Amino acid sequence: LDSDDKKRFRKTYLDMHFYDQSTFYLTLNKEERVTLYSILEPDEMGDMFDTIEDDNPAIPDLLKEMDLDYASKMLNDMYDDNAADVLEHLDKVDVDRFLEQMPKNDANNLRGLLHYDTETAGGIMTTDYVQFHEEETSSVAIRALKKFAETAETIYYLYILDSHDDLVGVMSLRDLIMLDDNDILGDHMNSDVITVNVDAEQAEVAQVFRDYEFLAVPVVDHSNKMVGIVTVDDVIEVIDDEAQQDYSGLAGVSMDEANNDGPFKAASKRLPWLITLLLLSMITATLINHYESLLAEASILAVFISTITGTAGNAGTQSLAVAVRRLAVEEINRHEFLKLIGKELITGFVTGLVTGVSVFLLVGIWKHNFVLGMVIGLAMCAAITVANLAGSLIPMLMSSFGFDPAVASGPFISTLSDLTSVLIYFSIAGVFMQYFVKA
Amino acid sequence: LDSDDKKRFRKTYLDMHFYDQSTFYLTLNKEERVTLYSILEPDEMGDMFDTIEDDNPAIPDLLKEMDLDYASKMLNDMYDDNAADVLEHLDKVDVDRFLEQMPKNDANNLRGLLHYDTETAGGIMTTDYVQFHEEETSSVAIRALKKFAETAETIYYLYILDSHDDLVGVMSLRDLIMLDDNDILGDHMNSDVITVNVDAEQAEVAQVFRDYEFLAVPVVDHSNKMVGIVTVDDVIEVIDDEAQQDYSGLAGVSMDEANNDGPFKAASKRLPWLITLLLLSMITATLINHYESLLAEASILAVFISTITGTAGNAGTQSLAVAVRRLAVEEINRHEFLKLIGKELITGFVTGLVTGVSVFLLVGIWKHNFVLGMVIGLAMCAAITVANLAGSLIPMLMSSFGFDPAVASGPFISTLSDLTSVLIYFSIAGVFMQYFVKA
Repeated sequence: LDSDDKKRFRKTYLDMHFYDQSTFYLTLNKEERVTLYSILEPDEMGDMFDTIEDDNPAIPDLLKEMDLDYASKMLNDMYDDNAADVLEHLDKVDVDRFLEQMPKNDANNLRGLLHYDTETAGGIMTTDYVQFHEEETSSVAIRALKKFAETAETIYYLYILDSHDDLVGVMSLRDLIMLDDNDILGDHMNSDVITVNVDAEQAEVAQVFRDYEFLAVPVVDHSNKMVGIVTVDDVIEVIDDEAQQDYSGLAGVSMDEANNDGPFKAASKRLPWLITLLLLSMITATLINHYESLLAEASILAVFISTITGTAGNAGTQSLAVAVRRLAVEEINRHEFLKLIGKELITGFVTGLVTGVSVFLLVGIWKHNFVLGMVIGLAMCAAITVANLAGSLIPMLMSSFGFDPAVASGPFISTLSDLTSVLIYFSIAGVFMQYFVKA
Repeated sequence: LDSDDKKRFRKTYLDMHFYDQSTFYLTLNKEERVTLYSILEPDEMGDMFDTIEDDNPAIPDLLKEMDLDYASKMLNDMYDDNAADVLEHLDKVDVDRFLEQMPKNDANNLRGLLHYDTETAGGIMTTDYVQFHEEETSSVAIRALKKFAETAETIYYLYILDSHDDLVGVMSLRDLIMLDDNDILGDHMNSDVITVNVDAEQAEVAQVFRDYEFLAVPVVDHSNKMVGIVTVDDVIEVIDDEAQQDYSGLAGVSMDEANNDGPFKAASKRLPWLITLLLLSMITATLINHYESLLAEASILAVFISTITGTAGNAGTQSLAVAVRRLAVEEINRHEFLKLIGKELITGFVTGLVTGVSVFLLVGIWKHNFVLGMVIGLAMCAAITVANLAGSLIPMLMSSFGFDPAVASGPFISTLSDLTSVLIYFSIAGVFMQYFVKA
């Protein structure tokens, strides 16, 4: 960038893929970036900015170092779903400053997109799509597409409207180029249009792409008017986000803990969960404390506390994970709810029985005390059954009350199951006490 | 299907989306399906079969109920990546029977695809793509595309070869339709082609799609000859698979536990992990047993076993999850390895310190015994530090030895950390014993 040969640099730069351009851009220092702004047009900058992740924390500062006019033009030249994503991370005042610089139409368009919840079809859609009326011909459409190709996010699907501007069909560019010049779009379109509602959750939208293998899907409002499209690149982001959320939930840790978080930042993100769970586990401690007389009499009981709580916690985590994944892909009605809980109860009992018999044999042989073995085995079986039930019941209840089931994290379930396991263990031990303690 | 009006049924059926066709098909009984085979041509059946998940356990039987000739034709008419995926789940003998019925070229093509590891670019690519030589003109290309549109999986990218048949450029259909009739492809193609190697892991391929937002990417062999393309629909499957694997690993449960598994099947899939971890936790029990004299003297120690093991387990799970996600997106070299371990050690110590001080205060106040509180606090701090270290070190070591880090599951780390936590706890308690036990 020091060289005066700006023209040659410009050509080399623009020949790169947009993603490679942005990777390069993000390594520059401020001075170099300012030079770059003088070399590239706002729309060229916009193409590159389209590939930067909208949650990149540097973006607000990058926009501030550009001229207001340059930045507004660039935002306006970006695909509007990406521009809206960028604006979402800015202060309200800054958003208004940028929007005021844009042509009224474009600004209103962006305002409309900003208005949708980010995790819905409306929040991820773009309005840069191509539409035609059903009576138009193939050759007119092709000519129009050459113009749209500059601005539309995809021209691989043509959306066909009737005279009331209702969406009545879709045609892929693949189908279009196979038509003869004077073929009428309405005669050759696919009128079985799969759409998503503007309020549909992003996970639902992703499922449509999985099933139908579309590259884009039209978004309609409540009166069935088309308002945008969701493209497959955004769906990949959605799928990554959803997977990340489920994964974070299972681990009880926020995955936005980026690579460059220092250890103190990382610790501060992990501690709230740990301390909350510590308090929950103190209740378990209080419970054990309540049974201290039992323990004083038979300290051997303490030996198996962690075996029982640990194994039940593992079983609960398994059942939780299965339930959360199931909830991620389907709605569950009341009838299925009971059926699934019933199934999980049997699964829990069967795993509990097998594990209980194993531990009965292990402890019985090790300690030459089959009554003790039986106590541990019974407690294990009951603790696992309860943990399995909790692992599936809690996320399903949360989901049916409208909460994200992934919040019922693995650590939460295993800490909760420590509590129930201890209660079960000492209750059973109390009953059989006299039979396994050597007098 | 009972009606004789097969023609009308045929039309209605074929007007549906392929995915809807297959959903319908999978609800039919055998008799109805056989009728369907008589109504639909093999290629129409193939279009529908393309949308059925290749791991659907019903597929082998479905193929067997078709005529050998019909089934072979259908497989041959499917996109070859999907056909290869289906064949992968069949017995070797059956595969050969189908391949023998196909034209030699097509059969060899499929044999080639079957030869690649399923989780590599070669395993997910298709050879149904369109290529042109660089000296061809735009109008020739468009005419050729109309023909290819029937068979190619995507015609939205044209791959451009030089006279040695080496891949030298790529052009999107979007760019092509903007050209004038006599424009030469080679003059307008993008010669900065991003490719993936045929042996590249599928996770790497997915990353290319995330970064560049392509709809397809070319696959090259070791001599840089183009051998296929990977399309975005397959990448969505890859992303789902990878997320599923990580999630399964964290939960210690196989996620192929489909909805329709009965409780006994589900239990049989969960038990191997549970029993393995039970054995590991029996080592912890042996360890506590070793300290039984301590426990007999101070049964209060038993009260806090589950608090310490539980909290350390939670911290270890957090650190594991962060490490596994990091390993999923980047290779880690020796230098970074040490840096990341160092960072995790500090994070562990900081979280351990805060948690330790909290528990010191809680126990000190509750039990009016600040020496006991200090023992618990110290043990907690050390146990969390060690659990954090294990949570990041174990997956990173596994990854650097070429194992899948996700195998070091959450339950494994928390069961292992039970062991180290107990050891730390009783060692510290042993040292300070005389100070907190009331004489």
